[in-house]
Amino acid sequence: MDINVPLKVIGVVHTSYTELEATPIQAGLNRAERGTIEIADGYQEGLDGLAEFDYAWLVTWLHKLAEPGIDPPLRHVPFLLRSLQRTKGIFATRGPKRVNPIGLSLIRLLGMSGPLIRFAGVDLVDRTPVIDLKPYVTRFDRPAGDPRCGWFDQVTISDGITPAQLARPRRQPDPPTG
Amino acid sequence: MDINVPLKVIGVVHTSYTELEATPIQAGLNRAERGTIEIADGYQEGLDGLAEFDYAWLVTWLHKLAEPGIDPPLRHVPFLLRSLQRTKGIFATRGPKRVNPIGLSLIRLLGMSGPLIRFAGVDLVDRTPVIDLKPYVTRFDRPAGDPRCGWFDQVTISDGITPAQLARPRRQPDPPTG
Repeated sequence: MDINVPLKVIGVVHTSYTELEATPIQAGLNRAERGTIEIADGYQEGLDGLAEFDYAWLVTWLHKLAEPGIDPPLRHVPFLLRSLQRTKGIFATRGPKRVNPIGLSLIRLLGMSGPLIRFAGVDLVDRTPVIDLKPYVTRFDRPAGDPRCGWFDQVTISDGITPAQLARPRRQPDPPTG
Repeated sequence: MDINVPLKVIGVVHTSYTELEATPIQAGLNRAERGTIEIADGYQEGLDGLAEFDYAWLVTWLHKLAEPGIDPPLRHVPFLLRSLQRTKGIFATRGPKRVNPIGLSLIRLLGMSGPLIRFAGVDLVDRTPVIDLKPYVTRFDRPAGDPRCGWFDQVTISDGITPAQLARPRRQPDPPTG
């Protein structure tokens, strides 16, 4: 079943990246780098009160991955498992190849001025459309204790890592299939 | 600008609620109550690996609030500020009235069996469409320290609270407008 909706673009992200392969894979792994959100005309009023939060969820439409009508494979090798070539279900990954290419980035709010929001924590290519902004609320968003994080608990993750740096190791060509 | 996309419904949430006003306002305020997600045919394979996480982000389409073509007011009184009748910008609230009615609920994963995911943390009405599931990853999703949470830091929030319980106090009728 599909929901046919016109998603409204409330703004656009400005970063220094143009290629997915060269873009850090998670805002939480690239917390120092800065970017800007430019809120579209007509939506600025909706920001009232947001400056009093330290963090926000930046909800985006990962336009470079969106292929209307085409479902990505439901299992694939996440960027962080490229060297091991292990597959995971798409809903057990945080990668951008999703059934609905919706991005969720935890950003630190640095300042707001007119239609511009300066933030830290960059994991998006330049001109990614923003479809929602939600304030980070500790009481809602922080699980108690130290939750299990599945396969992420078993990999070494370097800050600022990009897909290109996680390229799969060279190996023999695949045998013919079919 | 709009993005015209067919959002794919990957599943549906089953809870005991049918009316928004009687539904707890946040999963994080109703962490004990249980619900079920029924993953749609054809998407189960995407769950591979998810059972090894304690928490996930349940991304939903808040269908009861979706009014195609109609933008909600950009400032409104959040449920939690009803008694004070204070308005906030829509992007400084976590309420369901949004430009794009996308819900973000932090759920605790309890068990998976075939197409069914049992979870704890209910803030959705029955039959809410699911548009994404992402594992909670502490390293990506937990800010350092004790971040400022804007107006949420100034209100008393009771577990399990519903909009109906936060009804605005009785007052004199509004004066005529116009």
